[in-house]
Amino acid sequence: MVDDLGESVVSVAVRPMSAGDAAELRDDVVAVEEPMEIRVMSGPDRRTKSVSVTMRTPGHDFELAVGFLYAEGLLRDEREIDAIAFCGPPPPGKAQSNIVRVELDPRVDLDLVKLQRNFYSTSSCGICGKASLDALDFEGYEAPPAGKPEVAASVIHGLPARLRDAQGVFDRTGGLHAAGLFDAEGNLLVCREDVGRHNAVDKLVGAQVLAGAMPLFDRVLVVSGRVSFEITQKALAAGVGCLVAVGAPSSLAVEMATRFGMTLVGFARDGRFNVYAGPERIREEAC
Amino acid sequence: MVDDLGESVVSVAVRPMSAGDAAELRDDVVAVEEPMEIRVMSGPDRRTKSVSVTMRTPGHDFELAVGFLYAEGLLRDEREIDAIAFCGPPPPGKAQSNIVRVELDPRVDLDLVKLQRNFYSTSSCGICGKASLDALDFEGYEAPPAGKPEVAASVIHGLPARLRDAQGVFDRTGGLHAAGLFDAEGNLLVCREDVGRHNAVDKLVGAQVLAGAMPLFDRVLVVSGRVSFEITQKALAAGVGCLVAVGAPSSLAVEMATRFGMTLVGFARDGRFNVYAGPERIREEAC
Repeated sequence: MVDDLGESVVSVAVRPMSAGDAAELRDDVVAVEEPMEIRVMSGPDRRTKSVSVTMRTPGHDFELAVGFLYAEGLLRDEREIDAIAFCGPPPPGKAQSNIVRVELDPRVDLDLVKLQRNFYSTSSCGICGKASLDALDFEGYEAPPAGKPEVAASVIHGLPARLRDAQGVFDRTGGLHAAGLFDAEGNLLVCREDVGRHNAVDKLVGAQVLAGAMPLFDRVLVVSGRVSFEITQKALAAGVGCLVAVGAPSSLAVEMATRFGMTLVGFARDGRFNVYAGPERIREEAC
Repeated sequence: MVDDLGESVVSVAVRPMSAGDAAELRDDVVAVEEPMEIRVMSGPDRRTKSVSVTMRTPGHDFELAVGFLYAEGLLRDEREIDAIAFCGPPPPGKAQSNIVRVELDPRVDLDLVKLQRNFYSTSSCGICGKASLDALDFEGYEAPPAGKPEVAASVIHGLPARLRDAQGVFDRTGGLHAAGLFDAEGNLLVCREDVGRHNAVDKLVGAQVLAGAMPLFDRVLVVSGRVSFEITQKALAAGVGCLVAVGAPSSLAVEMATRFGMTLVGFARDGRFNVYAGPERIREEAC
């Protein structure tokens, strides 16, 4: 029923139905979703620990692993990485294992207690008993420097279309979220897609970590959907100065951007956008 | 910067910008996103265990907790529930605690090993070393019975608008996902909204569990966005016969629906829809 068509989309038989039209079976493509496990090896005794299993679209798996570790504060620099490898045999019918192991320099000894605490979404850590934002662990997050990047409003107006153009090449499914990194002039530097919006951002950030391009202070990060706590947290961890979403922000996204002085733009589409935080990075022009 | 406006939306100051228009600050509303911890008390010794922390939109918190436990196979019947309570003092400035404890009948003794295994997304469970679908734990999932519900194509065409109408009352933010439960004639039974699409489904299912209305064999579940593995898994656990998404399905969603004989409809909008699995539940009519 589902045939592989490359790594990120598969072909499925589908029966389209529209009012007044006879339904005939035809082929359609859908975005691939598969589990991937991220393991990290650290310390002088080369201990390996599994830190996450995520449902992702295959492709750019090493970047996904690196971006995830960076967002969680488990990796600060590409020079801490000794090697990245697929672990174990591929599943039946697949070319590649779904387990990625990031081997850190033996001198990097991860704080496993901190590691445990980081995965707030999976463990009882007491955050719900406190005020929503104060409860969240922002240790190690740095506010992006003021005044960088300075982005013209006209540039922001053009970003969603540029992201869509880049995405159009890959996404024939309507099912992939995109994340695009732009410079202040609106030039696309890198674009990544995934069924999970957080994975698209992790892949993009991972690519920049591996390129030695961190932090992303003078960059504009554009996401194709809504912007939640999780996306804002990842942008903040990457040092992004300006986060632009085609969709709506959540309350926590607005609170967090405000607290850290990150520019947050939402509903960037149809020639309009809303600035929820950090308007000083956006340069208005006479029309 | 963010003022409470009720439980599910807050007012924020926003600067709208459009090409050619001067930008003036105005009030806007965004969807509230806050952490909620779910604890479960079980067994003769009344042990309490934290099983999840999710970022959710406040409201229908008990239903969210119950629906989550049901989807994870930790609760099969509302009669297993002794009590549901908010735990501990509310966070500063909030009316309610963000911790919900579901107290099960003391005779219900949860298998904590199974509980651990269930949270595949958070632990090393070996699923990535196997074929994607075979690896996932479907123990206890039941295929919905064939032929129920039988839904006219014209009914399916009308569902997205009915969900949107129900959602329109609540969602002024553009930031909330909706899940709606319909009967085979297209009558809306319950609608729930959340910043997280999985939470909207958990809330809806939790409402049905508490009403003693499980399983949902003859119901149609409609979701406002895309349909991933996680959503399909929750629908399947609830016994839903027909799952309709306004957005795209992922490959795992299609595979899982096909395997269990659940009807899966995607891209239900603009007078069209695609049937990805289980077309026999959809009745075509002469036009």
